[in-house]
Amino acid sequence: MPLKLYYAPGACSFVPHTLLEATGEPYEPLMVKIHKGEHYEPPYKSVNPRSQVPTLVDEGEVITQIVAIVNYLAERFPRMGFLPAEPLAKARVLETLAWMNNTVHPTFTHIFMPQKFADNPAVHGDLKRYNTQLYRGMLGELQALAAAAQARGWAWLGGERFGPLDAYALTLLRWGSIAGIDPAGFPVLWAAVQRTAALPHVARVIERERLQLNLYRPG
Amino acid sequence: MPLKLYYAPGACSFVPHTLLEATGEPYEPLMVKIHKGEHYEPPYKSVNPRSQVPTLVDEGEVITQIVAIVNYLAERFPRMGFLPAEPLAKARVLETLAWMNNTVHPTFTHIFMPQKFADNPAVHGDLKRYNTQLYRGMLGELQALAAAAQARGWAWLGGERFGPLDAYALTLLRWGSIAGIDPAGFPVLWAAVQRTAALPHVARVIERERLQLNLYRPG
Repeated sequence: MPLKLYYAPGACSFVPHTLLEATGEPYEPLMVKIHKGEHYEPPYKSVNPRSQVPTLVDEGEVITQIVAIVNYLAERFPRMGFLPAEPLAKARVLETLAWMNNTVHPTFTHIFMPQKFADNPAVHGDLKRYNTQLYRGMLGELQALAAAAQARGWAWLGGERFGPLDAYALTLLRWGSIAGIDPAGFPVLWAAVQRTAALPHVARVIERERLQLNLYRPG
Repeated sequence: MPLKLYYAPGACSFVPHTLLEATGEPYEPLMVKIHKGEHYEPPYKSVNPRSQVPTLVDEGEVITQIVAIVNYLAERFPRMGFLPAEPLAKARVLETLAWMNNTVHPTFTHIFMPQKFADNPAVHGDLKRYNTQLYRGMLGELQALAAAAQARGWAWLGGERFGPLDAYALTLLRWGSIAGIDPAGFPVLWAAVQRTAALPHVARVIERERLQLNLYRPG
């Protein structure tokens, strides 16, 4: 039975979506219509009670959480080199992946869905404003990581091979453009993201998810 | 050169601290005095520019982020079984570890340090109140995980061996007691945490960090 991946267009499920597409192996991408609230309905909640994407299903076994899914795919498809084999190099990729996932990602959530952190709508404006400022700083950190990778002669953020950091960076910079942050303000990062988007397997996922890479509108 | 671990008493650095102590190997625990702001001063910032603990140093190589450190220690000390070897079982532990780290942990941060998410002090009360409510629900999820582990006949949260989930659960329930949540309200989890605290290597770390397990004071 092929692997199944539940994803929502433009969500962080983009990361395992591009990894699976890179393998060239058959898998079943299953779209969850978050704008219709499908993730809160019983069919999806029976798969993932926390109503989040991504969810990976392997022979009926459910795996949630992007860090766990990425590590699982790296172990299932070792020839792809999604994570470096050498422990220290692997730790370097995992620490950036963890930071993207526990810091950068939830900072955007404060902008996009402040109601997740505060039930009083009166405070949402403050959360959006301050977290947009924080998010801008974090994209600056990501740009520094991209510059450091380039300085090492690496083609991709985590090393010589395309991997989860490249797909997550694309997602995070795209989210920034939704939050009114111009990706052109981070030229090294923006160039890296555009190279990622041009990879054939990434381009296929972008088309399947019907994503625009840059949603920034000056003004 | 022995491994070095930068930790702050009671912080989530407790997790790798207990793992290192479990190995019986020499290592150097280095306390960062967060109450004195040492993490924002140049000596520590030169090690970890994000001013966070834990930080692991192996032969001069710096590794940050709890998920990356845990995976690194699991690979460096395979005999300890800090993570299961079988990929699906490992994914199960990593997904819970990632959830503790990207959801439960930052929910507590909203209670303890709301200024990290909002610069306007007027909204801090709302953040504290609502996130305390969320945190209570998450401790309920943790209690369900502890009950499920028990139902499988497992001695510890991740399986037959002590591991990162046990140490993190202790930390998170202890933080709950600081936030005015009575651990006795989660009897299965509280019993699991007390068993963890009684392990000799965990007890030694509790003593070194001078921690009280339960800081809840009724009403």
